[in-house]
Parts: sequence; C-alpha cells; structure tokens
Amino acid sequence: MTVRPGFTGSPLDRADRLRDDPAAFDTALADPRARLLRLDGIDPVLDDAGRLCWTTLADRQAGGALLLLGLHDGAPRFAELRYDMPEAPTRSHSIFPLLDRMPASEAASYAGARSLIDWHLRHRFCARCGSADTPIFRAGWGRRCADCGAEHYPRVDPVVIMLAVHGDSVLVARQPRFPAGRYSALAGFVEPGESVEEAVIREIGEETGVAVRDVRYVASQPWPFPSTLMIACVATADATAITLDTTELEDALWVDRAGVAAAMAHADGAPFLPPPPFAIAHSLFRWWLDETAF
Amino acid sequence: MTVRPGFTGSPLDRADRLRDDPAAFDTALADPRARLLRLDGIDPVLDDAGRLCWTTLADRQAGGALLLLGLHDGAPRFAELRYDMPEAPTRSHSIFPLLDRMPASEAASYAGARSLIDWHLRHRFCARCGSADTPIFRAGWGRRCADCGAEHYPRVDPVVIMLAVHGDSVLVARQPRFPAGRYSALAGFVEPGESVEEAVIREIGEETGVAVRDVRYVASQPWPFPSTLMIACVATADATAITLDTTELEDALWVDRAGVAAAMAHADGAPFLPPPPFAIAHSLFRWWLDETAF
Ligand SMILES: [Zn+2]
Ligand SMILES: [Zn+2]
Repeated sequence: MTVRPGFTGSPLDRADRLRDDPAAFDTALADPRARLLRLDGIDPVLDDAGRLCWTTLADRQAGGALLLLGLHDGAPRFAELRYDMPEAPTRSHSIFPLLDRMPASEAASYAGARSLIDWHLRHRFCARCGSADTPIFRAGWGRRCADCGAEHYPRVDPVVIMLAVHGDSVLVARQPRFPAGRYSALAGFVEPGESVEEAVIREIGEETGVAVRDVRYVASQPWPFPSTLMIACVATADATAITLDTTELEDALWVDRAGVAAAMAHADGAPFLPPPPFAIAHSLFRWWLDETAF
Repeated sequence: MTVRPGFTGSPLDRADRLRDDPAAFDTALADPRARLLRLDGIDPVLDDAGRLCWTTLADRQAGGALLLLGLHDGAPRFAELRYDMPEAPTRSHSIFPLLDRMPASEAASYAGARSLIDWHLRHRFCARCGSADTPIFRAGWGRRCADCGAEHYPRVDPVVIMLAVHGDSVLVARQPRFPAGRYSALAGFVEPGESVEEAVIREIGEETGVAVRDVRYVASQPWPFPSTLMIACVATADATAITLDTTELEDALWVDRAGVAAAMAHADGAPFLPPPPFAIAHSLFRWWLDETAF
C-alpha cells in the first residue's frame, strides 16, 4: 500500500537554482505572474474549497521581506515575512480547523511557508556571535551574519513516530494536551548521534518501557509546528507490559485490530478517537490495518 | 538484508530521564564510576583497538562544562565542552583516518558527543534575542536564554542520500572536494515543508536532471559533520539522460552491477573508488548489490 500522508504533494517547484542567483530573484519579483501568499498572522487564508489564496506583490507591506517559495507552472510564488508578525505558539489552535478543510497538496505548500516564516521570526540574531545584523540571503532560505560570516539555514527537526506491534495489537498513547479521548502513535525527536531505528527503540522504551526490535520505515511527512520531519515506523514488541513515563504521557494501551478499525471509523464504542487525517499517525494506523488485512 | 550502517550501535543509554533531574545529575557527577571522554580538540583519542579512551572527572578543566552523554552499564559518561575549543571545520580531515580504525559502536558514541559539543560552540548566543546569557540545561542537551526564556536544543539536520536505479545500473556522482576517483550516492538536505520521498525526487532532479519515482527507504545513520541524520533511499528512474548541476557536482555516471561490485571490492579497473565503510553510502551500495543478487 502506498501511503500518501498529509502535507505532501505540493505543486510548487522549489526552484533551488534561483536562490543563489540575485538576478533571477529580481526577475521573479518583476514577473507579472508573481503571486504572494495571503496570510492571517501566520495562518492561511482559504477559499471555499480549502485552497490557499494568493494576491499580487502589490499587496506586500512596507518593512516585509519576500521569501521565494518556488514556481507554480513557472509563475513565482512568494510569502512575506514581517517582523511584527506574532510568533506562532508551539501549540497552535487556530490552524487545526483550517487544516481539516485543506487538500494535502495545499497544506504542503503552506507548511513550507509557515515553517520558513516561523524560523526567521525565531532566528533574527546570530547564534554564533549574537549579532542582530543577519540579512536574509538565498531568496529567503537562509540568513548570513554580517559580523562573523556564519550562515544559518532553516531548521528541520527529525521526529520518529511509531507503532509498537505485538501480535494483532498496536501500542497507542495519549499526551495530557490531546483532545479528550484521542490516542495516537508514540513520537519523539531524533537526537544527535542516533539513527532513526535507534530513536524508535529508545523512545518507545523511555515512554512505555516496551522493548522493540525490527524497526521498519513506513512513510514521512513534514509537520509545520514549527518544523519537523515526521518519520513513521513500526517495530515488533515481544512483550506487552507497560511502565508509563508520566512526565510525557497520560496513558498508553494496546489496541487490537478490531479496535483500531473501529477507532478509524469513528464507530460507537471505539476504544479511542484517532488523530486527524492530516497527521501521519492517521496514515500509519491506516497502513497497518491495510498491511495486516487478510 | 539488514543494514548496519556506521555510527550506529552505541552502548550508551542516553538516560533522558536524568536530564531534567538536577539531583540525578549531581549524583552522576559524584559517582566514582563516572568517566570523561578523552578528546584531542574535538577529535577522539583512541586506543590500539580504535576504541574511545576515557578518564576520570578529575581531569576536567577549569571553565569547562560537563555534558552527560549517558550511562554505560550504569556508569555515567560525560564529555567536556570548553569554549576555547576550536570549532570543527565543516570539512574535517583529521577525523577520517581515525574513523577508519573505529568500530561502528565506538564511532556512534563519539558522534553524539562531537555533534553536541560542536552545536554548543556554534550556538552560545540566543538566536531569538541575541543574548549571550544562555546557560546550559538538561544535563548538556540544551541551552535556555536567561533574557527571553527561549529554549534551544541541539540541531539534527535530516539529509537524504540515495541511488537512482535504472535496470541493472545506479547513478553515482562526485563532488569536486572528493578524493580523486571517489564517487558516491547523491545527497541533499530535506527542506521545511517536504517529505523524505519528495526530497529524494527533488535532489536527484536538481543535481542530475534524472526523474525518479517509487522512493524506498533503506536505512539511516547519524553523521557528525556537524550533525545530520542521513536517510538512505533508492528510487526508480525510467530514463538515464543526465543534465549535471555543475555548481554541486563534478561528474555523474551510471554504473552497472558488475561495476559497483568491482568498486566495492577495490578491484583493478573498477569504474570508481567507493565511499568509506563508515559512510552510509557504502552500506547503500552493499545493500543494493545484495538485494539484487540472484
Ligand atoms: Zn555572527
Ligand atoms: Zn533570548
């Protein structure tokens, strides 16, 4: 089964070749087909079909900086960074109802813009020398310190998100901040000096005490809160005893195939409410149900 | 075939549970079994078997900060950050002959320490507000700004590294900085707003003009120069015409199975010299040869 996670399938060509070419950037700016992403703070403005809205560069504001998102059928697409934008809260609430309405491909274009803007808002100073003089370069995809010369690039944090599988059951968990009834896959950041496979084993062990082996990759997606790469995996558990890390999790439980199927169908009496379709955990549950169907 | 890439298999338990517990950190510091990683600048000191050398905490220097790498059989292991250490050059040369001598598990322990130290050296200031007052917290695994409160965590940059496969051949390439004769897999950073699969397709397209589909994950490894997560994949190409991005690559060519096997065996007349065994590109070539053997 091919997994098509949320936040993938953007129609934009990132046009990396234009980023190091100031003349090409100027040409893109002057292109009458150029369009600017409409934003409400850092949230998107959507049409009735849940699609992103775009305006002309005439709507850019004084003091903003234009970031080249890419080309759509050859037409330049920009987002505007304004330093008076509020930083996105780590736990954004306004965006989730919007994501429910957005096709994955539109959410993908938006995710890149949001992560990029948010990174600039949080990285105006040089982490190496403290300088405030860090002009944007590479058409919006970096900052270069005018004082020490350090180049800084938008950050993407790899995160593993995974199901431990024991026989016919998978391990699901809920964090205290989740909506009532929701359970999802376990997840955690990949640290310096470890592989995806090692991070999966470590995180499941830390959070639930369950030992796993045979980690298998399933799929990936970007997640723009603020900028992670979600790497979805499954792994095999030989035993089911749970020792919960209550600083991270409120609960964890094993759910069998019928229970997961009921949850994904939002059936009455289902053992939990599933994550939303744009989250790769949703794709992971769906993949596991399909893979193990016979 | 199970792939065991370099820089994996560290025997250290990262002991994340101790990081948020200052009392546990103090207990680890006072543990008579505690050991300090011996370093020469940021390079490791090795014994005759290529293993890391450790000393007691008595050898820590004034002005240094101890970072808790983890526990080895329950004994705390630290590395010392000293702000007078030279930053590692992006293209390190002193380390590679050492890596040739190191078992993967030792290289893995070292990789985590090196990436962590290097991150601190390059991130002493708050990127959000410019403050120089960013004390270390979480036992060495973060810095918290005393002025604006922002928390900063060690960075891991996901990178895709991949072989385009066409029939019996794979696409290999060389960067100008490579040793003479060496070719490797293509590679590039995953950007905000894209998945692993999208990054693979984009990077192969950008660098060689080759269109690929059906991206498959193979394995991953950490790479401590300075701190990337290498995500190795293969993808299917339907055509072989190459349009080289000469700003990135010096050459790219298709090599058939016999050629890759000759290269990996360092045979006379082989079409290229392979990447070193500790690089995941090496594991990727080996995996492809084994997977397609019949
Ligand atoms: Zn600087
Ligand atoms: Zn600050």
